[in-house]
Amino acid sequence: MLTLALESSAKAASAAVFEDGKMLAFSFQNAGLTHSRTLLPMAEGMMKNLDRPLSALDRVAVSRGPGSFTGLRIGMAEAKGLCWALDIPAVGVSTLEAMAFGGPVLDGQMLCCCMDARRGQVYNALFTVEGGRPVRLTPDRAISVSELQSELIARQEPWILLGDGAELCYNTMDRDEVTLFMAPEPLRLQNARGVALAAEGKPAVPAGELMPAYLRLSQAERERLARMSE
Amino acid sequence: MLTLALESSAKAASAAVFEDGKMLAFSFQNAGLTHSRTLLPMAEGMMKNLDRPLSALDRVAVSRGPGSFTGLRIGMAEAKGLCWALDIPAVGVSTLEAMAFGGPVLDGQMLCCCMDARRGQVYNALFTVEGGRPVRLTPDRAISVSELQSELIARQEPWILLGDGAELCYNTMDRDEVTLFMAPEPLRLQNARGVALAAEGKPAVPAGELMPAYLRLSQAERERLARMSE
Repeated sequence: MLTLALESSAKAASAAVFEDGKMLAFSFQNAGLTHSRTLLPMAEGMMKNLDRPLSALDRVAVSRGPGSFTGLRIGMAEAKGLCWALDIPAVGVSTLEAMAFGGPVLDGQMLCCCMDARRGQVYNALFTVEGGRPVRLTPDRAISVSELQSELIARQEPWILLGDGAELCYNTMDRDEVTLFMAPEPLRLQNARGVALAAEGKPAVPAGELMPAYLRLSQAERERLARMSE
Repeated sequence: MLTLALESSAKAASAAVFEDGKMLAFSFQNAGLTHSRTLLPMAEGMMKNLDRPLSALDRVAVSRGPGSFTGLRIGMAEAKGLCWALDIPAVGVSTLEAMAFGGPVLDGQMLCCCMDARRGQVYNALFTVEGGRPVRLTPDRAISVSELQSELIARQEPWILLGDGAELCYNTMDRDEVTLFMAPEPLRLQNARGVALAAEGKPAVPAGELMPAYLRLSQAERERLARMSE
């Protein structure tokens, strides 16, 4: 089973090729160039360097959100295009779950995955690790940092912070009240390795059924609804 | 300062591009193909995808050993070739030090970096972390696993194991005697990110002065010496 994984939900873009659970190749780029410019060439370069034709791929895994609206649309569109052209199915995984799968994996660890959602909120999900795998404790949600802090205190500590919202939580929460650790840098941000690991064992679907999960309305949609309700 | 880092001291090959301490791009491949086939195309693809000409590079960092004789020769030769063609200097870093720089970086952590050197030995160096940076406790050396265990017990515990010799040490040492943790998988093996981080602040030299550090004679050299002494 040859899987191409794509991640473009935030500033950095990455792609990975996994064969039966083993990472054959990984590419990462964080240079401020748009994902529409970097993501497919990375994937193409990896497959070429692996000496495998694109037609050898069995499925494409992609992070479906939450995350940057533009980033997610680019990742989903490229995944759908590839799947359509190659006639293979796709697996959409939660960005937050991919973070947990790409993070530390010692049993008993408590993982707090968060992305900065602006306006005092984070996109968040909580996981614990059992048998070397993250197990979900909450659904993906948009939640205020203070509400999240109360929930972390109510559950078992300490918490390992993952994601581009990790720093925000670490700096905003009252660390006399809750014990927090930042995950080591290369494990902290979502990347295609986590997407591939989270996709393992998940059923693939026809690419047309892939749907992004933004969790919140885009600014344009919010403004349109506000105008309509005036 | 734009740095290209190359790592090919073991089975996997990787390349990274750093600008002033920030990782712009990273490529990794572990598919059993020879490094002479994969390493330069990875570097070339990254620079192209970053929209930077090779001539923008200021220096090349490369792991100089210990490690696989063939792997090291390929990495060193490619670094020297690039430096010569671009008229830029090079930085050779210890493979074991690169492992430490690419590993966990919480102050007070004790890092045991090891590569399987066969014949009951590991290539090893010990580090502790101060101010977010690994600080060397021993030189690079070839040492028996039992001798290393005695040294680990004599120093402060617990130890975090890094490198492709981590599993060997974890499985061979008496863990009732010494507390050992395996570093999380993506931090465990040497890679070009660690090479770039270890090279930071180190002086660059003319590429012609780069020398591999094998720590032991190759099998061919050992056999030749044995024949000559008969």
